[in-house]
Amino acid sequence: MKPETKSRLHKFQPGNHTWSEVTKEAYKDGEGHWCGIDRNTIIGGRGEAANFHLRYFEIAPGGNSSLEKHVHEHTVICVRGRGRAVVFDKVYDLENLDVLYIAPDAPHQLINPYNEPFGFFCIVDKERDRPRKLEKEDIERLDATSETKGKYIGYVEGD
Amino acid sequence: MKPETKSRLHKFQPGNHTWSEVTKEAYKDGEGHWCGIDRNTIIGGRGEAANFHLRYFEIAPGGNSSLEKHVHEHTVICVRGRGRAVVFDKVYDLENLDVLYIAPDAPHQLINPYNEPFGFFCIVDKERDRPRKLEKEDIERLDATSETKGKYIGYVEGD
Repeated sequence: MKPETKSRLHKFQPGNHTWSEVTKEAYKDGEGHWCGIDRNTIIGGRGEAANFHLRYFEIAPGGNSSLEKHVHEHTVICVRGRGRAVVFDKVYDLENLDVLYIAPDAPHQLINPYNEPFGFFCIVDKERDRPRKLEKEDIERLDATSETKGKYIGYVEGD
Repeated sequence: MKPETKSRLHKFQPGNHTWSEVTKEAYKDGEGHWCGIDRNTIIGGRGEAANFHLRYFEIAPGGNSSLEKHVHEHTVICVRGRGRAVVFDKVYDLENLDVLYIAPDAPHQLINPYNEPFGFFCIVDKERDRPRKLEKEDIERLDATSETKGKYIGYVEGD
């Protein structure tokens, strides 16, 4: 195979926490309860052969991602501010360079209860299933321990 | 599928730039010219289903990775100090949170010419080919431009 010239550098721009040649996207077009999130795909969708995508998400103060689950895994690396992750039956506090692995089908939500933006890389498989809403048994598990009860946002029964 | 409980947090330890429950490994057991590198596999090899591995490498001052090429791609994220990457016919300077995509079969080498450790995440496909030594035409290309001529380390013809 001939070597090719498509290597590239995305220069980090500390002033606004963006990367050169990366365009900010909407977090999701679809439904679900979420707010205050930007999404940036850094690696993926440009002809790469790699089996993964690297995205950067930023949650504004008071914002949160969808409460959801899916078979594909998340690898989350905190790189701006700090935040919280509700995963299965635990709550994790995330600070700079902490790495969180979210296992297959674990219900999860990322939350920013702080006063500064919470930014993180999220690495996922290129081929992946769509997120699903939680089922009643997922909510019962979240509500069964004091660690996660009342810590998630936006579940509406029958929604 | 039942949700499972194998999610986990690797807490970053800023004092020594390590992560909880991650063990430092040798960079490579094999041959080739390289020096001063530690390797840490953070995601991968623990029953994950994801199609990628997340590793953290640290190159000591004056150290370098092998000069090599392979079909699988690298996604490199600088998170400690700064360093240099020779890739195909270019040299990139890497600083905090810069993201470098190294394309399939691009000859490359990561170098730390500075006085502090150069640390970076490197994301790769789980299933990947073994690195190969460069061929004469790769070296001729490196030597053909002033940008890369003399910037790589350790090529021995016929080695």
